[in-house]
Amino acid sequence: MITDVEKNLVIGVDIGGTGTKIGIVDARGDILARDEGIATGAYSDFEDFVDAINTVIGRMVTATGSEGRIRGIGVGAPDSNYYTGNIEHAFNLPWKGVLPLADMLSQKSGIPVQVTNDANAAAIGEMTYGTAKGMRNFIVITLGTGVGSGIVINGQLVYGCDGFAGELGHVTMVRGDEGRMCGCGRRGCLEAYCSATGVARTAAEMLQKVGEPSMLRTLDNITSRDVYAAAMGGDRIALEIFEKTGTMLGEALADFIAFSSPEAIILFGGLTRAGDLLLDPVKRAVDKNVLHTFKGKTKILISNLKDSDAAILGASALAWESNLPV
Amino acid sequence: MITDVEKNLVIGVDIGGTGTKIGIVDARGDILARDEGIATGAYSDFEDFVDAINTVIGRMVTATGSEGRIRGIGVGAPDSNYYTGNIEHAFNLPWKGVLPLADMLSQKSGIPVQVTNDANAAAIGEMTYGTAKGMRNFIVITLGTGVGSGIVINGQLVYGCDGFAGELGHVTMVRGDEGRMCGCGRRGCLEAYCSATGVARTAAEMLQKVGEPSMLRTLDNITSRDVYAAAMGGDRIALEIFEKTGTMLGEALADFIAFSSPEAIILFGGLTRAGDLLLDPVKRAVDKNVLHTFKGKTKILISNLKDSDAAILGASALAWESNLPV
Repeated sequence: MITDVEKNLVIGVDIGGTGTKIGIVDARGDILARDEGIATGAYSDFEDFVDAINTVIGRMVTATGSEGRIRGIGVGAPDSNYYTGNIEHAFNLPWKGVLPLADMLSQKSGIPVQVTNDANAAAIGEMTYGTAKGMRNFIVITLGTGVGSGIVINGQLVYGCDGFAGELGHVTMVRGDEGRMCGCGRRGCLEAYCSATGVARTAAEMLQKVGEPSMLRTLDNITSRDVYAAAMGGDRIALEIFEKTGTMLGEALADFIAFSSPEAIILFGGLTRAGDLLLDPVKRAVDKNVLHTFKGKTKILISNLKDSDAAILGASALAWESNLPV
Repeated sequence: MITDVEKNLVIGVDIGGTGTKIGIVDARGDILARDEGIATGAYSDFEDFVDAINTVIGRMVTATGSEGRIRGIGVGAPDSNYYTGNIEHAFNLPWKGVLPLADMLSQKSGIPVQVTNDANAAAIGEMTYGTAKGMRNFIVITLGTGVGSGIVINGQLVYGCDGFAGELGHVTMVRGDEGRMCGCGRRGCLEAYCSATGVARTAAEMLQKVGEPSMLRTLDNITSRDVYAAAMGGDRIALEIFEKTGTMLGEALADFIAFSSPEAIILFGGLTRAGDLLLDPVKRAVDKNVLHTFKGKTKILISNLKDSDAAILGASALAWESNLPV
């Protein structure tokens, strides 16, 4: 027998600069159907893009026999505002200005739509299906091309006065002119050091400064994956890069702990594939830098959501938050 | 005619290292009676101290004819835990270890007791009676002997997983060995620079480094008040001290804004008597350092609560939060 709760489904949409992924998800976090065929960059007109999403959703609902069971659509998209449902001035998307994503997609699909940025979606995904199940105070830090964050306090995502709270990738870690330029136009941001891109920049800097031999010297465009591979092969410079990156990240986390005293900080995204190479120096730096009041209280964890599923699950989890009936 | 709501009263107790203040407060924030006669340091036994508070409360209730109208007691005390009602390992109080303040005082008085630290009490006071009335997302920064903070998100005070969240005086502003020693045992904390004590330390440092004449050179133990008086007299070194202090505080606030995107940050406490001398560089530094997403959104304000009343009002406001009937 299928109960009413088990019948409810949600749809997760993850809009990225390159591709857009869509999935139908049940209450246990199983993805019943998925589509990764929409190339975001192929649509010069925003409404055409929303039409494409709506068409895929309609096809998936029919194919899975999910008519009447979809409770909501959750969308993770860069620079999107939970309060308004708009994407606002996104750097990495083809369309400029303010885009009424939630309104447009809910009108076309007849399903309520909730929108937030990918890091916030990741936090809700962790709370609904992942490592943060049952936690009421935690922070998710996404370590990918950039550094993002989703903050949960008293069981609620922190959106702030404008819908954009939780930009912890842009706290300043190195003040003054020696701080690295960040994509945001400011200097010394956490993101400029502790993203995948930041790791690659640290590699380039260290290879210039240090004379020591390294297998990284043979490569042209070093990526964080190269640094990881070299570190796993025992390369001393590569190991040092993870040590530096983890230490700075841990110093930042110690400050975040002073803010909201979370039960856990969960690391998520590409860079966490480095596992203990990253996690060990992070934990050491947290322990060294955190205020005595908080010592040993906050767990530092790596997300247990599968990389390939996490974006869809995170976005879909947002739809469970909606109380609107369909 | 007195309505039921108007009949309700609360009691605010502010426990400081030197003195303890008690007031009976109505729903408008008027203090109907006050007592500042308890010398905290005079009680070597904690229970004797709680007895003294209870005796004063009993006397004040009788004197004002408030029997049956007291809805709760709110207490602001250093290192106190909202969840447990205990004071835990307070540096500045005569008693060591974990002290069951709320349990003991509520048993003796027969009135429900809520406890939190003074900065959290200040934030609730601002929300109930002060500058933050009607705001759901704001941060109060207390600038006194130390730097404390009370953070409100979605209309709720942030206590974190352990009851101690909101220690923004201990985010690290100067990393490494050149950071000033802080009272917490770590280096480079905001508190070591932007408290009243920090201002005095900056003065001592600058007078050593800079050859320029200053009226501060004639003084023995420079306080932040001396620096303020000198600055108002046009003393260039004193003006520079406020410029430096405000700039660093503004840099810190820009990071706090990236966390919770508050509608306002409210500065509170002794150092704010410097007014625009402090506020102008703070605002400039926030504007220069804040992420573009948040530019111009967060108001930087000085508390409008009277200094002499604020501690009692802040503590009393905590008691309105309690839903327990008396």
